[in-house]
Amino acid sequence: MIKKNYILAPGPTPVPTEVLLAGAQETIHHRTPQFVNLQKETLEKAKMLFQTKNDVLALVSTGTGAMEAAVANTVAKGDKVIVVDGGKFGERWAQLCKAFEAEIDLIKLEWGDYVKPEQIKAALEKNPDTVAVFATHSETSTGTVNPIEEIAAVVKDYKALMVVDSVSGLLAEPLKMDEWHVDIVATGLQKGVMLPPGLALITLSEKALARVNECPNKNKYYFDLKKYSKKYPDSPYTAGVNQIYQLSAALKMIEEEGIENVWERHRILADATRAGVKAMGLELLSKKPGNVTTAVLAPVDTGKLTKLMRDKYGVTMAGGQDDYKGKIFRMAHLGYMGKFDTIIGLAALEMAFNEMGHKVELGSGVKAAEEVFLKEGV
Amino acid sequence: MIKKNYILAPGPTPVPTEVLLAGAQETIHHRTPQFVNLQKETLEKAKMLFQTKNDVLALVSTGTGAMEAAVANTVAKGDKVIVVDGGKFGERWAQLCKAFEAEIDLIKLEWGDYVKPEQIKAALEKNPDTVAVFATHSETSTGTVNPIEEIAAVVKDYKALMVVDSVSGLLAEPLKMDEWHVDIVATGLQKGVMLPPGLALITLSEKALARVNECPNKNKYYFDLKKYSKKYPDSPYTAGVNQIYQLSAALKMIEEEGIENVWERHRILADATRAGVKAMGLELLSKKPGNVTTAVLAPVDTGKLTKLMRDKYGVTMAGGQDDYKGKIFRMAHLGYMGKFDTIIGLAALEMAFNEMGHKVELGSGVKAAEEVFLKEGV
Repeated sequence: MIKKNYILAPGPTPVPTEVLLAGAQETIHHRTPQFVNLQKETLEKAKMLFQTKNDVLALVSTGTGAMEAAVANTVAKGDKVIVVDGGKFGERWAQLCKAFEAEIDLIKLEWGDYVKPEQIKAALEKNPDTVAVFATHSETSTGTVNPIEEIAAVVKDYKALMVVDSVSGLLAEPLKMDEWHVDIVATGLQKGVMLPPGLALITLSEKALARVNECPNKNKYYFDLKKYSKKYPDSPYTAGVNQIYQLSAALKMIEEEGIENVWERHRILADATRAGVKAMGLELLSKKPGNVTTAVLAPVDTGKLTKLMRDKYGVTMAGGQDDYKGKIFRMAHLGYMGKFDTIIGLAALEMAFNEMGHKVELGSGVKAAEEVFLKEGV
Repeated sequence: MIKKNYILAPGPTPVPTEVLLAGAQETIHHRTPQFVNLQKETLEKAKMLFQTKNDVLALVSTGTGAMEAAVANTVAKGDKVIVVDGGKFGERWAQLCKAFEAEIDLIKLEWGDYVKPEQIKAALEKNPDTVAVFATHSETSTGTVNPIEEIAAVVKDYKALMVVDSVSGLLAEPLKMDEWHVDIVATGLQKGVMLPPGLALITLSEKALARVNECPNKNKYYFDLKKYSKKYPDSPYTAGVNQIYQLSAALKMIEEEGIENVWERHRILADATRAGVKAMGLELLSKKPGNVTTAVLAPVDTGKLTKLMRDKYGVTMAGGQDDYKGKIFRMAHLGYMGKFDTIIGLAALEMAFNEMGHKVELGSGVKAAEEVFLKEGV
């Protein structure tokens, strides 16, 4: 039986034909006015993604590069930082801060838990000279969303910057950078923004830019944001020419759908997924499940489950990491997804579970998802 | 909610990326040895589609063009022909034979019924000087497959040619041209062969070629098969250069899957569809349902049903024609389809029926299809 490929993992996500074809256009030189104008126009429009008036800077890297840029430009050796660590991506902030020799106050959460504003408040009160609070918007390893609006409301009254990894979160979860007083947002575009891997964006508030200008850390070059900021809308190094074509095409699609509708679509697909897996008798890992990916505790080895679905069904979901390796699977609803992607994922799970000897009622997950779609009128 | 498009109509069918990209290659001149060699290699390989040793001729047209070629090259004014008319496509043979002023013995079937070899035998006995029997492999308007092998076994002992429209049937239903003694097969490639519309194939047995050479009908030009046969592997007029690229790519995929597996895949998807709609409490129109498309009698206006699915869900199925307009819908399993295409179609039907006020148990059709897939081990 032929297999079509369905990406239901939290990135890279399915890329629309419009974006793929945009990337297949002729590569022009990045120092031409034609390209610089296109990049300017595109990055100006990209402000909408973050709901900000700040400049948006493009890095030829994945999201981790943008995260490194956030750290390398704001943290110097010995600086105090607060890091929220609720899973693999909080851990990544900690690893980056360690690489740049910060003094880390780690808010370590149980996997599946989320950070509370009081925890941030207490940490800041303890060290008011903290230079930055690093948090994860969507902790993809556990399918948890952190309450960025609430913690940013705490951080704004301190010296510290509010720095957010919204690599997987952007567009799947609402984010209003300016209104919420977020200082830095880092993202990769192979997620909600529907590009193939290769381009990252970072945007900084005035407070963040002031810190970047005075931050004494010298150990950075490719990710030196002063250079990107000064050159904007041109690029300090070779620009991602074809990726900018793709971003332009993706932004057109997002604009046409409307960003609130994009957020709402992710919420509905996540609701349908949650209803579907619960109807199959399964439990969620997260205490505050987000709309990027649903992490589900499973009664079978999820390494084998995800392999079976990928190799036999063409359906790619993520397994678990670290302590949850083999124990959870993660079904995403991120990026260019509609309701039949959710249906496909649930149908694949129903069949794969039965094939592995764990009886679930065939059609039960799909039924629950269909009920959500009918109720939502989509 | 974004809509992705799912074509579940009996043609054009979903086109794989490999085929689309093949068609996006540089157009070279059709009289170059490079192109003629590619066309030769491709059409030689295309013999496999028909299970024949006969030359396969390429026409830049849709399937109807190949059907006209079959008639215009074998039938002259006043010639006796037998036409099996079990729906819209049998009717098309009759219209073509009428256009070329044949004397038609019409075997008119109830919609959903199929022709029996005895009917052909009786018609041939009545008029042993019949020049051709025109039959439809898959009568798409009713979802019925005709027993070509059995009727060709009757025709082979007469002067008449056995001419088959396998436009939608090819690859979805087994067809063994040489073994079954079929004389002419006409097809269009925007169906099982997975191309966009634009190229048709026709292939003729020695008996058919002999008739073509002596057929007195002069009223043909573009579809004059003597020209195509003489020029082969070159083309009498401009060749479908990029379509040949696409056919080459599609044949590679078919070869990799294996033609028996392609037939079997269509059979399994059709079985799952039939099980799914029956589980929803619906009935099939056909007395001999084929593996191209499943025609289903529905308790709602299927014009509205197919419009709702297309406009709201992005799922394109066909409605009914003539007397069955508004009464049936047709869900295809033709071409580049895997099991999740079937699941999508059934899930869309479940939701759309409920939305139209006809209660069907959500998930019931999907469940029945999943049972078939698990039983078949695919």
